[in-house]
Amino acid sequence: MKASKLAKRYRITHGKKFRLKDCDPSDKDGFSSVKDWSDLLQKASHDLQKMQDKLYARNQWSLLIIIQAMDAAGKDGTIKHVMSGINPQGCEVHSFKSPSTEELDHDFLWRSTCRLPRRGKIGLFNRSYYEEVLIARVHPELLEKQKLPEECLGDNIWKDRFEDINAFERHMVRNGTRILKFFLNISPGEQKKRFIARLEDPRKHWKFSASDVQERKFWPQYMHAYEDMIRNTSTSHAPWYVVPANNKSYAHIVVGAVILDALEKLNLSYPKVSKAQMQSLQAARKSLE
Amino acid sequence: MKASKLAKRYRITHGKKFRLKDCDPSDKDGFSSVKDWSDLLQKASHDLQKMQDKLYARNQWSLLIIIQAMDAAGKDGTIKHVMSGINPQGCEVHSFKSPSTEELDHDFLWRSTCRLPRRGKIGLFNRSYYEEVLIARVHPELLEKQKLPEECLGDNIWKDRFEDINAFERHMVRNGTRILKFFLNISPGEQKKRFIARLEDPRKHWKFSASDVQERKFWPQYMHAYEDMIRNTSTSHAPWYVVPANNKSYAHIVVGAVILDALEKLNLSYPKVSKAQMQSLQAARKSLE
Repeated sequence: MKASKLAKRYRITHGKKFRLKDCDPSDKDGFSSVKDWSDLLQKASHDLQKMQDKLYARNQWSLLIIIQAMDAAGKDGTIKHVMSGINPQGCEVHSFKSPSTEELDHDFLWRSTCRLPRRGKIGLFNRSYYEEVLIARVHPELLEKQKLPEECLGDNIWKDRFEDINAFERHMVRNGTRILKFFLNISPGEQKKRFIARLEDPRKHWKFSASDVQERKFWPQYMHAYEDMIRNTSTSHAPWYVVPANNKSYAHIVVGAVILDALEKLNLSYPKVSKAQMQSLQAARKSLE
Repeated sequence: MKASKLAKRYRITHGKKFRLKDCDPSDKDGFSSVKDWSDLLQKASHDLQKMQDKLYARNQWSLLIIIQAMDAAGKDGTIKHVMSGINPQGCEVHSFKSPSTEELDHDFLWRSTCRLPRRGKIGLFNRSYYEEVLIARVHPELLEKQKLPEECLGDNIWKDRFEDINAFERHMVRNGTRILKFFLNISPGEQKKRFIARLEDPRKHWKFSASDVQERKFWPQYMHAYEDMIRNTSTSHAPWYVVPANNKSYAHIVVGAVILDALEKLNLSYPKVSKAQMQSLQAARKSLE
């Protein structure tokens, strides 16, 4: 399995010179052969299950997975296809939608912090605190809803937000969380194709909202926000993965490989039982018999 | 009212050279006259009520008050005497005791973060995330309970903790929270006197635990931890106030004055109603009549 190689191909740890236009949303050259993709995904899913079980038993690390993308880039599908084999007892998915009044009454990291995974668990954020430097940046009227005091709205606001996010993630890593951040990168043409497909398929009508088409008009502003976000929040402890997502299956394989690679690097094993514990296990067995 | 002067007397914004032995727990020289203390506290309490009402109506700032101290230094009494006039709808007190399993399964800031005050509110932490660099530092077996991965337990751990706390507080301030941190400073002799008083007063027996006396043995270690904490986490945006607490009433006045001073500096006023809103108020009045 080329998990580690594939992960490295799309990992950004130092964002300073990152340019979105260098990333081809249609790239699928991480594998030379396309024909065994579905086998690969199945194998990855199987390995993920086994490792998640050890992560849970070990109860020392937690894994935070963040997925950000434009509409129809495949966030839901990726979660479904990559994570479906996982025992839900060890994995929590949180989808962040419009913030509640209570959430708006706190700082922008707050609602995510409250939903961070416990030790031993995988937490998956479908959208996240990064919305603050994406949608709230593209639509300043959303920032207004936070009712921040004027002195908190200076020119440095985005620089400060990036600094706070980096410090927050560094703190998590220092306390045993591994962080993986995915940007599912699609082209505007591919988004258009998928919107039309949604309009044509009654099973997908519920996924379509007229406002999605409105948001498309802000594509350049969003791409600028994404690029700036990746430039300023790609660190060695919490890298971004810019995943080509025009091909859904390929995106799933890449995301699966990155997660697998991160878990493999933890060298997880079931907790070893001490001599004293072993004796108490044997005593328990005797009393049962 | 000398709130601002009194606050300044005990405020530490740059801790580098801070030495606890320079602080006299019996100091009460912030006022030249002792006889009007109770009047002063009553006046402060009245002013606090009025300002808290504006803070709530304004719904833009929040105020986080942290109280740390050795046992019997007067944390509960200070909260009772300073805050009792406040409308509880605008004020939440959280007392942090031994962490739960769920809390231990998260980073040490997590349980406090989840209880941060909403915009417009006063949040008061009776003990806080600072316990991490106090009791968990004096008793390393408590740190073990967090089950942190080995690589998170390096020599830099306390330096990193201070850095993370400072970044966390800076983030809160950037998002509209004012932070006031109090260390109620008593002498070991005063603590002894109060413990004995608790043992002699049946109404105070419930407050006494045999382990409190055990903890007294760690006094020097605690003082070292407090000093290092104040040195490393006193900032202009989130200062420590080292409050002389051998005299309870004096401590209450100082704490009240500091809170009052902080609220005064926010220049709070009731939200102004726009012309359009005023018209709609008048229309509402008409329809009621």
